[in-house]
Amino acid sequence: MITVGVIGYGYWGPNLVRNFAELPDARVAWVTDLRRDRLAPVTARYPATKVSTDPADAINDPLVDAVVIATPVRTHFELGLAALRAGKHVLMEKPLASTSDEACRLLDEAERRGLALMVDHTFVFTPAVQKMRELMLGGELGDIHYYDSVRINLGLFQHDVNVLWDLAVHDLSIMDFVLGRQPVAVSATGLAHVSGSPENIAYLTMFFDGRLIAHVHVNWLAPVKIRRTLLGGSRRMLVFDDLEASEKIKVYDRGISVDQSPDTVSLMRIGYRTGDMWAPQLAIREALHAAAKHFIDIITTNTPSISDAHAGLRVVRLLEAATHSMASQGRPVSIGAGAPV
Amino acid sequence: MITVGVIGYGYWGPNLVRNFAELPDARVAWVTDLRRDRLAPVTARYPATKVSTDPADAINDPLVDAVVIATPVRTHFELGLAALRAGKHVLMEKPLASTSDEACRLLDEAERRGLALMVDHTFVFTPAVQKMRELMLGGELGDIHYYDSVRINLGLFQHDVNVLWDLAVHDLSIMDFVLGRQPVAVSATGLAHVSGSPENIAYLTMFFDGRLIAHVHVNWLAPVKIRRTLLGGSRRMLVFDDLEASEKIKVYDRGISVDQSPDTVSLMRIGYRTGDMWAPQLAIREALHAAAKHFIDIITTNTPSISDAHAGLRVVRLLEAATHSMASQGRPVSIGAGAPV
Amino acid sequence: MITVGVIGYGYWGPNLVRNFAELPDARVAWVTDLRRDRLAPVTARYPATKVSTDPADAINDPLVDAVVIATPVRTHFELGLAALRAGKHVLMEKPLASTSDEACRLLDEAERRGLALMVDHTFVFTPAVQKMRELMLGGELGDIHYYDSVRINLGLFQHDVNVLWDLAVHDLSIMDFVLGRQPVAVSATGLAHVSGSPENIAYLTMFFDGRLIAHVHVNWLAPVKIRRTLLGGSRRMLVFDDLEASEKIKVYDRGISVDQSPDTVSLMRIGYRTGDMWAPQLAIREALHAAAKHFIDIITTNTPSISDAHAGLRVVRLLEAATHSMASQGRPVSIGAGAPV
Amino acid sequence: MITVGVIGYGYWGPNLVRNFAELPDARVAWVTDLRRDRLAPVTARYPATKVSTDPADAINDPLVDAVVIATPVRTHFELGLAALRAGKHVLMEKPLASTSDEACRLLDEAERRGLALMVDHTFVFTPAVQKMRELMLGGELGDIHYYDSVRINLGLFQHDVNVLWDLAVHDLSIMDFVLGRQPVAVSATGLAHVSGSPENIAYLTMFFDGRLIAHVHVNWLAPVKIRRTLLGGSRRMLVFDDLEASEKIKVYDRGISVDQSPDTVSLMRIGYRTGDMWAPQLAIREALHAAAKHFIDIITTNTPSISDAHAGLRVVRLLEAATHSMASQGRPVSIGAGAPV
Repeated sequence: MITVGVIGYGYWGPNLVRNFAELPDARVAWVTDLRRDRLAPVTARYPATKVSTDPADAINDPLVDAVVIATPVRTHFELGLAALRAGKHVLMEKPLASTSDEACRLLDEAERRGLALMVDHTFVFTPAVQKMRELMLGGELGDIHYYDSVRINLGLFQHDVNVLWDLAVHDLSIMDFVLGRQPVAVSATGLAHVSGSPENIAYLTMFFDGRLIAHVHVNWLAPVKIRRTLLGGSRRMLVFDDLEASEKIKVYDRGISVDQSPDTVSLMRIGYRTGDMWAPQLAIREALHAAAKHFIDIITTNTPSISDAHAGLRVVRLLEAATHSMASQGRPVSIGAGAPV
Repeated sequence: MITVGVIGYGYWGPNLVRNFAELPDARVAWVTDLRRDRLAPVTARYPATKVSTDPADAINDPLVDAVVIATPVRTHFELGLAALRAGKHVLMEKPLASTSDEACRLLDEAERRGLALMVDHTFVFTPAVQKMRELMLGGELGDIHYYDSVRINLGLFQHDVNVLWDLAVHDLSIMDFVLGRQPVAVSATGLAHVSGSPENIAYLTMFFDGRLIAHVHVNWLAPVKIRRTLLGGSRRMLVFDDLEASEKIKVYDRGISVDQSPDTVSLMRIGYRTGDMWAPQLAIREALHAAAKHFIDIITTNTPSISDAHAGLRVVRLLEAATHSMASQGRPVSIGAGAPV
Repeated sequence: MITVGVIGYGYWGPNLVRNFAELPDARVAWVTDLRRDRLAPVTARYPATKVSTDPADAINDPLVDAVVIATPVRTHFELGLAALRAGKHVLMEKPLASTSDEACRLLDEAERRGLALMVDHTFVFTPAVQKMRELMLGGELGDIHYYDSVRINLGLFQHDVNVLWDLAVHDLSIMDFVLGRQPVAVSATGLAHVSGSPENIAYLTMFFDGRLIAHVHVNWLAPVKIRRTLLGGSRRMLVFDDLEASEKIKVYDRGISVDQSPDTVSLMRIGYRTGDMWAPQLAIREALHAAAKHFIDIITTNTPSISDAHAGLRVVRLLEAATHSMASQGRPVSIGAGAPV
Repeated sequence: MITVGVIGYGYWGPNLVRNFAELPDARVAWVTDLRRDRLAPVTARYPATKVSTDPADAINDPLVDAVVIATPVRTHFELGLAALRAGKHVLMEKPLASTSDEACRLLDEAERRGLALMVDHTFVFTPAVQKMRELMLGGELGDIHYYDSVRINLGLFQHDVNVLWDLAVHDLSIMDFVLGRQPVAVSATGLAHVSGSPENIAYLTMFFDGRLIAHVHVNWLAPVKIRRTLLGGSRRMLVFDDLEASEKIKVYDRGISVDQSPDTVSLMRIGYRTGDMWAPQLAIREALHAAAKHFIDIITTNTPSISDAHAGLRVVRLLEAATHSMASQGRPVSIGAGAPV
């Protein structure tokens, strides 16, 4: 039995508490939130759970094994560091931290202490994304040519982070999990339509070694909701539409063939191949339930997470570089250096 | 009665010939194509039309009033210049020319001689795009926040131009017509998946003065066909989906409202507004028929075209700048100077 | 404050309890269910609510003002009658009863005692259906030509009632509410694909006085889920697609015009009219919440329900007649007589 | 080389002439139409084809091998009989005749003379319908449970036949081809919304021996266009949506399993099975081209047609019985007897 303290009971916190409460191997000992009015429903719903407006009550309780942090990103570093220093395993809401430097320091702290530091990249626990990875690893798609994702809708404008940190973080964590490769440079553009606010529309291109390119389009000010990812491979191509009730994943046996025999060297012949479409059956389950169970499992069995702090750091690095590039109208920024290419 | 010579009878030429042949005020005197095998069907279908493998036969025929050029873009300049110098009005297939310099010289030649030089930006003659412009000009949409377009499908790979020149040219000509404003800089990214070929996937951001941004995504290697444009305004937002059988244009009464009263200055309040959706009835007609008729009309009445060489030049400038930017991974390129910002 | 007892805590009961518990003017004093294992979660969730396996505990509690019955339809009559005889107002899950005779007797009992007897035709409390009725009453649609509804999916096969009683009951209650007119005869066809089970696919036509026809297609064995109603009027036509996230209602300015001037009497001219499409913004709220609130309101204010026992009886009469017709391969059955036409 | 005369050049005739003209083994010697104004375009387009307002010119020309009849259905019998008596093979536009008696007499005449009498059930030549038959025959779908089709749109109202004869004829010919089984009785309902006109909305149920039912919904007065057929089998279920650009056929690995082991005899257990969806690649070709080629082939090789007069007769019998049933509000009519069951 793992005893959990949850810090932050705003938008996502209630979902986390509910899922941990439903796990047979976990119990939620504490829920804290700075706003006292948010805590009343906790007591009504979970009489055995203690509440507080001070996160330290959860962090410092010796009975607590693990701390789940679902607060605004600017507080992740300080709360996470405190929890790790108190010897607690940590599940951090995404993104892991505000900067790659902070993310590195959290990662180091966790590794030095031998504690689990998992980041809640919820989508990697969905059946659809796991199927994408399975098809990718199984070679069904061939060499990957591009990853293209659109995640747009109306609202909710954030005050403290731009739309990349709010929406593209999902795409970047999915891409990191599915491709297993990291970009070497990014170019991003965007605009804030409200004076004094961060960018609410953004376009992010990511360059990889080899013939692979990725792009993410995010927008808080769209008239329609779109959640669609294209994954183009040399053998097959895939569409992931998260708004489809069933058939979220469609695999198309389509592509090109290139005839480069010597006698056509002067004029390359490109052939087009179109075949069947196939939509694999996907399990129906709540991704956050799987994520919560995974967190308990990696603590109990002392095994690595599929959504560990390294993944969290890689995603933060991309967001950071993209934000730099966006400030200079798309000027490419290499990953790692954090400086212009 | 305007007598027309059509140069080039490949993919688009037959459509041009058919539409001019159907106009009561026009007759097609010549069709020329370098490949003799393409000319046999012309004679079978249009017995009164002469054919030749030499474009000069059409250009130099004193009975010909106007020349329609539907050949590969690299030949536009030379053929267009010859036709203008022979005193013919010219309808040029898009894009107007291979470079902005060539486009300028064609434009100058036409203006000096008082000849019509129209570019076949076919989409500006569709009922859907004309409705977009009408809504825009009528103020229905408010201030425009963004223009976002996706034009992807499988094939047809071009050998001589990248996907921007083949597909984005449509979006740029629509955008130019609808917005009536020109970008000040662009940032583009893309990739060629076939060795030795031009880029087959590309992403193009355009920056404007003021709070307006535009983006175009084009791809020859997509598993699904998408033709969708979002036009976000402060009052309403619009979706143009060209693959819808009817309801190609949907207007959404959605947006945000910003409360910037003094007492909330520290924390801006953004409200979300969602209202009715409305799909205006659109006329059903072939755009190319309207374009052909327009070309005859501007010659007959000596009036300016809505798709004149200035529009053609503006589009070529964007394609040229985008190609430069794409070669340096999104580094922004200003429009006009043609050089990095 | 109205004190409520809920009988039946299977599929729908938990939703009813939750909604009544959330109303400020109501409290749930009792939940009963024959299966004791279903009652444990009630106690956990609602500590102040008493539970029992005997419905009489709720019915006979003098503190209880109203009884909500969410049990299998075969038990509706007996439980409803007992509750009314105990002087309780009753909200009955749909359909009101197993036969029109039972429905009549419940209605009579309630009227004689001056008690509310409401049937939970939940859909009439949805914003979409209320908008349909509003457009209908406002004359926006003109004369109604037809009502056509499809409600199909895979599962859940019922053992005791055919698919009309399970799925078509929704369409019949919506139609009754929107049209405000009653059919004079029905013709139904259907089939049971599982030996010994009731029909799992059915087609029901309803005839009205005048030029109005209605049809409902229901199916438990369909590969795809469809929830779509067409409402054809002489002025406009409407599509209600309940699976659309937004734009559930689309109103089409389409129809025909008939030219019957004397000189065309021999050959009627029918013209086709196509105009704009319009999707009114709909409120987002849980229909069952509105239904529960309405039940409390009609008790408190002693006013009639929009979903009263008369509506319940009309729907049961149609289901009964349709079942008779289905047994004889579509032979028409008149409504009211209950006998073949 | 088969010499063809085409009678009727209204809506469908031009398509027939074009397709026969494109076949290398056929030539169109005659086109006749009662309206002289329709014949001018024939001469312009096909200079070698003779035209006339008298169908006898085509029927009696000794050079003509086969007559294609694309006139209103009320004239099919007389023209078909004349052509057969003149020793010509006949391709008849669907439906074969106005009554089953006429259809029988045409069939008899053709058989007695050893002439081909094919009916243009165009849909059976589409790749989608041929794929449905192939899946059906290959056992992929298991036992067929139901066939359900919707074919609705706005217009074109016919003056002389009801909507069943105009639209349902497509569904009946597809169903006849795919299932290879014939209904034993029908029940149909419908309504005419224009005074003095035939029914413009109709619902048709067909009963088969065994656990199979079919239904067709046709409507000339619908706000939206739908062309969708569900084919429910015990192993898999199929959706044919003719308006999909690609993926017209989707095969769902879904269904139910029934547990009827002795110990559950009192309460049957029905399980639900959901698996992958699969959309087979379909060839892209014009169905009418294949139909025309097939007609020439069966003449040349003296082989039976897949769309012969027997199929034409079966479809007419259903339309006739359905029209009878519709006149008596769905009263079932048996097939063969033509009288009420």
